[in-house]
Amino acid sequence: MSKKVLKLGIPKGSLQKATFDLFGKAGFNVTGCERSYFPRIDDEQIELVLLRAQEMSRYVADGVLDAGFTGYDWIKENNSDVHEVCELLYSKATSKPAKWVLAVPNESDITKPEDLEGGIIATELVGVTKKYFEEKGINVKVEFSWGATEVKARLVSGIVELTETGSSIKANNLRIIDTLLVSTTRFIANRDAWKDKFKKEKIENIAILLNAAIDAKSVVGMKMNVRANDLDKILKILPAEKSPTVSALADKEFAAVEILIEDSAARSILPKLKRAGASGIFTYPLNNVIH
Amino acid sequence: MSKKVLKLGIPKGSLQKATFDLFGKAGFNVTGCERSYFPRIDDEQIELVLLRAQEMSRYVADGVLDAGFTGYDWIKENNSDVHEVCELLYSKATSKPAKWVLAVPNESDITKPEDLEGGIIATELVGVTKKYFEEKGINVKVEFSWGATEVKARLVSGIVELTETGSSIKANNLRIIDTLLVSTTRFIANRDAWKDKFKKEKIENIAILLNAAIDAKSVVGMKMNVRANDLDKILKILPAEKSPTVSALADKEFAAVEILIEDSAARSILPKLKRAGASGIFTYPLNNVIH
Amino acid sequence: MSKKVLKLGIPKGSLQKATFDLFGKAGFNVTGCERSYFPRIDDEQIELVLLRAQEMSRYVADGVLDAGFTGYDWIKENNSDVHEVCELLYSKATSKPAKWVLAVPNESDITKPEDLEGGIIATELVGVTKKYFEEKGINVKVEFSWGATEVKARLVSGIVELTETGSSIKANNLRIIDTLLVSTTRFIANRDAWKDKFKKEKIENIAILLNAAIDAKSVVGMKMNVRANDLDKILKILPAEKSPTVSALADKEFAAVEILIEDSAARSILPKLKRAGASGIFTYPLNNVIH
Amino acid sequence: MSKKVLKLGIPKGSLQKATFDLFGKAGFNVTGCERSYFPRIDDEQIELVLLRAQEMSRYVADGVLDAGFTGYDWIKENNSDVHEVCELLYSKATSKPAKWVLAVPNESDITKPEDLEGGIIATELVGVTKKYFEEKGINVKVEFSWGATEVKARLVSGIVELTETGSSIKANNLRIIDTLLVSTTRFIANRDAWKDKFKKEKIENIAILLNAAIDAKSVVGMKMNVRANDLDKILKILPAEKSPTVSALADKEFAAVEILIEDSAARSILPKLKRAGASGIFTYPLNNVIH
Amino acid sequence: MSKKVLKLGIPKGSLQKATFDLFGKAGFNVTGCERSYFPRIDDEQIELVLLRAQEMSRYVADGVLDAGFTGYDWIKENNSDVHEVCELLYSKATSKPAKWVLAVPNESDITKPEDLEGGIIATELVGVTKKYFEEKGINVKVEFSWGATEVKARLVSGIVELTETGSSIKANNLRIIDTLLVSTTRFIANRDAWKDKFKKEKIENIAILLNAAIDAKSVVGMKMNVRANDLDKILKILPAEKSPTVSALADKEFAAVEILIEDSAARSILPKLKRAGASGIFTYPLNNVIH
Amino acid sequence: MSKKVLKLGIPKGSLQKATFDLFGKAGFNVTGCERSYFPRIDDEQIELVLLRAQEMSRYVADGVLDAGFTGYDWIKENNSDVHEVCELLYSKATSKPAKWVLAVPNESDITKPEDLEGGIIATELVGVTKKYFEEKGINVKVEFSWGATEVKARLVSGIVELTETGSSIKANNLRIIDTLLVSTTRFIANRDAWKDKFKKEKIENIAILLNAAIDAKSVVGMKMNVRANDLDKILKILPAEKSPTVSALADKEFAAVEILIEDSAARSILPKLKRAGASGIFTYPLNNVIH
Repeated sequence: MSKKVLKLGIPKGSLQKATFDLFGKAGFNVTGCERSYFPRIDDEQIELVLLRAQEMSRYVADGVLDAGFTGYDWIKENNSDVHEVCELLYSKATSKPAKWVLAVPNESDITKPEDLEGGIIATELVGVTKKYFEEKGINVKVEFSWGATEVKARLVSGIVELTETGSSIKANNLRIIDTLLVSTTRFIANRDAWKDKFKKEKIENIAILLNAAIDAKSVVGMKMNVRANDLDKILKILPAEKSPTVSALADKEFAAVEILIEDSAARSILPKLKRAGASGIFTYPLNNVIH
Repeated sequence: MSKKVLKLGIPKGSLQKATFDLFGKAGFNVTGCERSYFPRIDDEQIELVLLRAQEMSRYVADGVLDAGFTGYDWIKENNSDVHEVCELLYSKATSKPAKWVLAVPNESDITKPEDLEGGIIATELVGVTKKYFEEKGINVKVEFSWGATEVKARLVSGIVELTETGSSIKANNLRIIDTLLVSTTRFIANRDAWKDKFKKEKIENIAILLNAAIDAKSVVGMKMNVRANDLDKILKILPAEKSPTVSALADKEFAAVEILIEDSAARSILPKLKRAGASGIFTYPLNNVIH
Repeated sequence: MSKKVLKLGIPKGSLQKATFDLFGKAGFNVTGCERSYFPRIDDEQIELVLLRAQEMSRYVADGVLDAGFTGYDWIKENNSDVHEVCELLYSKATSKPAKWVLAVPNESDITKPEDLEGGIIATELVGVTKKYFEEKGINVKVEFSWGATEVKARLVSGIVELTETGSSIKANNLRIIDTLLVSTTRFIANRDAWKDKFKKEKIENIAILLNAAIDAKSVVGMKMNVRANDLDKILKILPAEKSPTVSALADKEFAAVEILIEDSAARSILPKLKRAGASGIFTYPLNNVIH
Repeated sequence: MSKKVLKLGIPKGSLQKATFDLFGKAGFNVTGCERSYFPRIDDEQIELVLLRAQEMSRYVADGVLDAGFTGYDWIKENNSDVHEVCELLYSKATSKPAKWVLAVPNESDITKPEDLEGGIIATELVGVTKKYFEEKGINVKVEFSWGATEVKARLVSGIVELTETGSSIKANNLRIIDTLLVSTTRFIANRDAWKDKFKKEKIENIAILLNAAIDAKSVVGMKMNVRANDLDKILKILPAEKSPTVSALADKEFAAVEILIEDSAARSILPKLKRAGASGIFTYPLNNVIH
Repeated sequence: MSKKVLKLGIPKGSLQKATFDLFGKAGFNVTGCERSYFPRIDDEQIELVLLRAQEMSRYVADGVLDAGFTGYDWIKENNSDVHEVCELLYSKATSKPAKWVLAVPNESDITKPEDLEGGIIATELVGVTKKYFEEKGINVKVEFSWGATEVKARLVSGIVELTETGSSIKANNLRIIDTLLVSTTRFIANRDAWKDKFKKEKIENIAILLNAAIDAKSVVGMKMNVRANDLDKILKILPAEKSPTVSALADKEFAAVEILIEDSAARSILPKLKRAGASGIFTYPLNNVIH
Repeated sequence: MSKKVLKLGIPKGSLQKATFDLFGKAGFNVTGCERSYFPRIDDEQIELVLLRAQEMSRYVADGVLDAGFTGYDWIKENNSDVHEVCELLYSKATSKPAKWVLAVPNESDITKPEDLEGGIIATELVGVTKKYFEEKGINVKVEFSWGATEVKARLVSGIVELTETGSSIKANNLRIIDTLLVSTTRFIANRDAWKDKFKKEKIENIAILLNAAIDAKSVVGMKMNVRANDLDKILKILPAEKSPTVSALADKEFAAVEILIEDSAARSILPKLKRAGASGIFTYPLNNVIH
């Protein structure tokens, strides 16, 4: 009988803090994540391990971990056979998906992938890059780059590098000539763990709670008091697809209206509500939302 | 036709973090403010620029910016012709307004501005300082000081320097002999932008949302359950000028009471409510408040 | 007549930030705690002083302070005659109480306190350690250690050192052979101050507010809409010992249910509520809770 | 009779460390320069004050200081009437003089100063910039910029900014269209101080010692043993303009040759000397050199 | 005709500072190494590039660089066809060569490589590790580890990791069961560059100068005055294999003795010389030594 | 037979870096002092331990260490029975000895120790302070202070605190009313170790080498070429008590003069030498000097 514990890999580095913040919002208490590779969590059925996103899918595929968080790019690079539980859009409002792009110096004559025939390409994503050029029938030497890849664009023929906003590409005076891969964070599970009843349910619960925490990040609770006569007018200002909760007050002339609403919608609605006669309007932050 | 975009200046430095926090509370998502002078905001009708408070009003007056945040002191110093939208008291509860004071070494014989006749005054606020002495008919040489002005008080005759709590003045063993100017943060607009329908409305909306976020900083939501018999007694404990929302519960014997209340008032009321029989009392934080 | 001011000692160092966060949650505004040993608080009847936990109880006993926060260990070490107002469990969910343990190198032959007869013990807690050995009739030389005590375990015979998780003990390859003292944070008062009507009430109010803030740390507010038919089913899912607030909605078919619930309980209940038909479920953070 | 003390201004900021290193090489011991604006020096006839390079010349001209170090640019900007003692080339080998350049965005149509007619120029060097445009008869509005001037090139018409290697100009995608001023560090004296016998001699001594320390930075001592027969051959390899010191050894067959030589020359001579038969060749660092 | 420039790769990271210090001692002036990947050097025939030691040999083999500094381990791992110019022992006195070792948890049953049959090995040095196990006929899965390899020893079967002093191995409670490779720094050249007359000479000169600087690190110059009668006695105290330079003084009764001597030898000789009657003994630091 | 190893304690904290620098100048190579409490030294007969200066003398007296460096103050405070090998004046030129002073707030009425009768004194140096007041027959309560003692001067009656320049005393607005102790660094040995032939000689050698390194810190080597006719004149400029080394040159018309001279003397002599006709004057740094 397998032990009732889920081994869960957390990506070290740029996603680490965001992931722990999500766990916090989801009601978990995680400690020791700055000092140790094995942070503690207040759920005895979960054991955490910090690993680089680049190697996560291999440890999940090997069964060293039951599940973990990593990028779609590194699942492809490692060509790992894992079950994808769900996509995690850490913040709906602002984050753009990361892209791996083929880039050359601004001053280079190269304008399309074919112009790189016979050249050297530096990248951290060797496997995906080799496959990309093979499929196009272009003959290049792909070399693994240990960081600072942008700097090497002027030493070799071109690079394949990760970019979110394109600002690092611009700062190094490079030009993008193609996009190889668009990547977002995925929650993945080992195929055997996914067949284990306990582990599957545990993984699903974590997925539900994290998504509830993500949803809560761009939503606020809004409350106001409304005169009975104004109620219809007020309800029309609120977004139609959300259902406001209207509750009776002791003072029969008034009703209390409460609604969950997107941050960005709240910004435009607040002044309108005031003009329409709502009083005591306020918004407050949420931890989790399950629509 | 003018483009539907508002160019908005954010003060770099001591007010920067507080300003971005306010925008966050007001429901805006601002990113990239540590690395770039052009932070991104999730509202396509706003473009942000980070500039020193000292030069903000000049760029607004010139029309380089449509609006911006700066101190009253630097509007005066630059003698800028701008429209003042509103005052922004970042935190009602604790912040004292900043003052520009005339100070001399503790051991100096000087006790009043007139004693400085013929002397040298070091200050960052050259224009205001010159005008101050001219109006008093005192002849001094006012020199621009590039920071560390307190240190120069012993090199020249006196200084005019900014102080909030007076602690830096004391730490340098100086004595204040007059106050030239009291300054708070202002939201200012270019005069032409203020005549543009789109820009004026956009500026006003921002002003409403920021003030709602400021109001929310010193207020909490408070909720409790009250036995029908105790309701009058409880309502008398709550601040009279606020109107609590009383709602019926399924259990008819009880009512739920909710009220927005100042942080500092909550501190003294909580124990009284408990003694008066309220149960399940709790407070929660707010993002925005429009009374 | 004694002045209407309470002199309150805050422990500098590891507890400092946690203590100020608690004051913040409790509705106080504290500023200047990074730069000054005398932070300002927005309550004119309180004066704060930052002092090391080790010396706090002596200043309270001497009457230099009216009250203060410190560990049980240092009250014992200083043998201070003070009134203990209450224990403060900064976070119910995760913090383990700190223990002072007797430890020796892993490779040492020593297995029990008696084996240390005639040896040298290095520790910061000299008084308690001396008493411990005296009571056991073991003759050792106890020397005060100025930090880095673990390192000295290999220079002398053994050490008495503070540990929470035991990780520093392990990292230095030491072995625990006994526990001398288990310590938690205490709120203590000077015996005369406790007899002063104003001071006692002030101290009690602070105790109530801090405990309400501590309680709020592991609790969230949870709200949902429930169809009248499902209400019983839903109420059974919620923890029995908490009493949910059920309020009528305008739409008579639905009721709103609100409940305060432990973070950790919320994690397991959220998915069940969803399956049981609750809609618009969300959780939100609290500042203070008085049950 | 004037007091036997020289008040000497040291530039705070980028030159500060280099200046104190020079004083150290010159045999002075300076302490407290990180904490205080009045560093101590082990010469009772000198008092140091740290001031920004921008305001140094004004305080020297006013007589607040007897002498000081600053850039040629700020002497011009302040239009200060001071005596220039000497130029100080902090390091002969590598430092390029700083230049104030007129720059515009790469994508701008502007190619010459005349194209800026009617525009706005942002700069820290307002006076010099105004004079430059006036002399060319070009009408522009020159505004003082509080730092981050490169960023403003896209807000206004153009900027005048300091650059050493041009890298910051390139990183901000700007184009240089003219150079207004080339600046190096100067040692300046108050005109009255320069007439005072004590102060003049003290200033001259400091100038000699600092220049001896600067000269020593790019020079090393080189020593070797040479067989009497090889002496002529070896001496021809050494730079002709330097005079080597040849001393007799106890062993009459050998002579010791010692010479002061430029770092960069040593690099190419060392292998040649070895091939020519010199033995025990070594180089050692110098503190001061007076040719 | 090939351009008269040598492209030289400097290892980024742990060896970077030591390498630039050596260049400095060797008489070169290198600037901009903190901010840029292309530091400037005051020799127009050399262009520097900062690259990770791990990828250096590949860029040298490809001809992207003419020469570079890297470890023997990464030359083997990359299996690069390059010319090895010389070994560089950065500091003769103290540095131990780095070793790649096979390690397992202390509590593991594994005692020899064969026990790992069928297991997983995590390492940064995949190629060398695979070859090691293949040659022994042991079947293991070797996986690339992205840093923090020691932590993974408890996730997989064993690790191959770099260690100098073994302290990191011990700190993670691991046990070494074999050594795969001992590595030191090498100066390597591209095979074509090594055939180019200009480049070969340039590379050799750099090698001579760097080795002269390395030699100078553990050697000091020592000088003393010796009475003619004591000369023989003194010379016997000095190391026999070094030839002291004895020069005549104006005062015929005395001679000056100068010698280059190891740091560590100087420590034991200094007191003996004093007792033997030498006077005015002193030692001074060296930049370069060519024996 | 005792093992041929000397256990040597190095003071952790403010003296640590200075001590290791001295060891470096003295020809020892010490590594690992940032990470470990047991730094390595390239002398197999020495083992180093880092300990706080406050507890050093106790460990030396107990025999846990053979010798160590600490302040005179803490030898007195611990009342330790140790052999004092020598005083170490880390830098002759500038360092003032540290003093333990009795201080009170500037605004206090207290002007002499006797005024403190019946009060509380906070200090880190409890033993020395108690003895001081006992000898004067003044009755005070002396309490151990855990750092930040200056801050406590306003909580208790007075403090006894360490000061070098008095600046911290001034910054806290305190007034010194007496000096209890003047302290410098001492090299101390265990009484038994001092009777051991090997250990005593080892300790003495270290003392000689460290003192030679200290002497070298304020001295430079100076060299110049002098025309035979000018020799007498030049020798008169040089300090009489030092004996310059005059050596014959190949060119009989000139002699080379070399002398060791104080940094501060060099500053005033250099210009005079130049005027007197010396040529090729230069100075160079020293590592060790034994007069």
